[in-house]
Amino acid sequence: MRIIVVGAEGDIGKAVCDELGFRHEIIKAGRSSGEIQVDIANRASVDAMYARCAKVDAVVSTAGDVHFGALGEYTEETFMLGLRHKVMGQVNLVLAGLAKLSDGGSFTLTSGVLDRDPIRTGTGAATANGALGGFVLGAAIEMPRGLRINAVSPGLLAVSAPRYGEWFPGHEPVPSKRVGLAYAKSVEGAITGKVIIVG
Amino acid sequence: MRIIVVGAEGDIGKAVCDELGFRHEIIKAGRSSGEIQVDIANRASVDAMYARCAKVDAVVSTAGDVHFGALGEYTEETFMLGLRHKVMGQVNLVLAGLAKLSDGGSFTLTSGVLDRDPIRTGTGAATANGALGGFVLGAAIEMPRGLRINAVSPGLLAVSAPRYGEWFPGHEPVPSKRVGLAYAKSVEGAITGKVIIVG
Ligand SMILES: NC(=O)c1ccc[n+]([C@@H]2O[C@H](COP(=O)([O-])OP(=O)(O)OC[C@H]3O[C@@H](n4cnc5c(N)ncnc54)[C@H](OP(=O)(O)O)[C@@H]3O)[C@@H](O)[C@H]2O)c1
Ligand SMILES: NC(=O)c1ccc[n+]([C@@H]2O[C@H](COP(=O)([O-])OP(=O)(O)OC[C@H]3O[C@@H](n4cnc5c(N)ncnc54)[C@H](OP(=O)(O)O)[C@@H]3O)[C@@H](O)[C@H]2O)c1
Repeated sequence: MRIIVVGAEGDIGKAVCDELGFRHEIIKAGRSSGEIQVDIANRASVDAMYARCAKVDAVVSTAGDVHFGALGEYTEETFMLGLRHKVMGQVNLVLAGLAKLSDGGSFTLTSGVLDRDPIRTGTGAATANGALGGFVLGAAIEMPRGLRINAVSPGLLAVSAPRYGEWFPGHEPVPSKRVGLAYAKSVEGAITGKVIIVG
Repeated sequence: MRIIVVGAEGDIGKAVCDELGFRHEIIKAGRSSGEIQVDIANRASVDAMYARCAKVDAVVSTAGDVHFGALGEYTEETFMLGLRHKVMGQVNLVLAGLAKLSDGGSFTLTSGVLDRDPIRTGTGAATANGALGGFVLGAAIEMPRGLRINAVSPGLLAVSAPRYGEWFPGHEPVPSKRVGLAYAKSVEGAITGKVIIVG
């Protein structure tokens, strides 16, 4: 398959490329990193990315900003960041990709643990993650041409623990290998409309 | 208790007022209906609403627009409607109300069935509902002064079936009485961080 991985140079993106890279052709995309530059929060930029790629069989997104902050300190703007970027950004990849992907292709988005196992300062992420779970469930039943859609919801990655770990007391870090497998299940398997938990 | 019900004149709002109105003092709010006018999608308007009310013990929101449409026909703007209104609007009521509610008070938001039992054209609502589920779970653990927060997720109401029913094939309509009870469980009970399903 030809697979676009948006966020390929990130912690999760690398886990995806390590798992899928040997069996498939990967096109690495990122805001400033990778072979193709795209800002998923900008629909025109997403359209331009697809226009540059020939055949695409699968899209994996491991990108999406969200603001972390104490509940009482969120403003409308900081709260909306996750909804505009992590949610609408990934939704843009799907809406723009509906007509682009090969028959039977798939979208795999990334949510995260915080809508099932919350932490302080994580309300924006919990909200975005919940939204993505609802989105894949709702979108799956309307996918044309046998397209599929899932989200992977990883716990804190072991490789990310040095960056984020102090905010996740007691969370058991997840090896990148297991995270990569969840994306393989979505891309190479047959399930659709699921949130694949890597706990 | 003194309870603001935002959306009090709507189908769900009426169910809430019928259940809680005999035991509590209800302040009815709505965009154009009710005693107090507020646009929850506008933070300044929400702040003005709270400024007009003296003591508030509980806030119930049964308001929030979302766009319904075929998956392939969503634009960024129509998709964002649910995130800005149904999600950010209800989140505004919480963020602005954190310092306003009496100790031990509660927020009760409204999501809906579509993130667990999807229908065609419902992806925007499925996304908004999932977001609200994540929000209450995340926000509950950071609530100050014993404040609580839950969401009620009703199925299609029997009273709403004439308006929406044709889009919900096979969904069993829910009596308003059962919907009202779910809000009473949130407002008068002790649970927090829950999505209360009325299926
Ligand atoms: N790491 C974890 O433990 C973990 C666990 C669960 C969920 N998550 C979630 O998974 C997602 C990725 O996390 P991560 O830790 O892998 O992040 P990361 O290491 O910071 O990498 C993010 C990647 O996404 C790209 N990106 C960011 N915003 C973009 C945009 N608007 N358009 C296109 N590309 C964009 C970045 O490209 P540039 O570097 O070029 O900007 C980068 O390649 C986040 O939403 C995070 O909340 C992470
Ligand atoms: N009805 C159902 O079967 C059902 C089932 C599950 C979930 N839901 C969800 O529950 C919510 C309410 O549904 P409903 O059927 O009760 O709606 P509805 O009958 O249309 O009533 C909505 C109420 O909310 C108010 N409102 C709307 N937008 C507002 C805003 N931006 N600021 C302040 N007030 C606003 C309206 O005031 P004005 O009339 O003055 O504009 C009205 O009082 C929706 O999000 C819906 O998706 C409904």
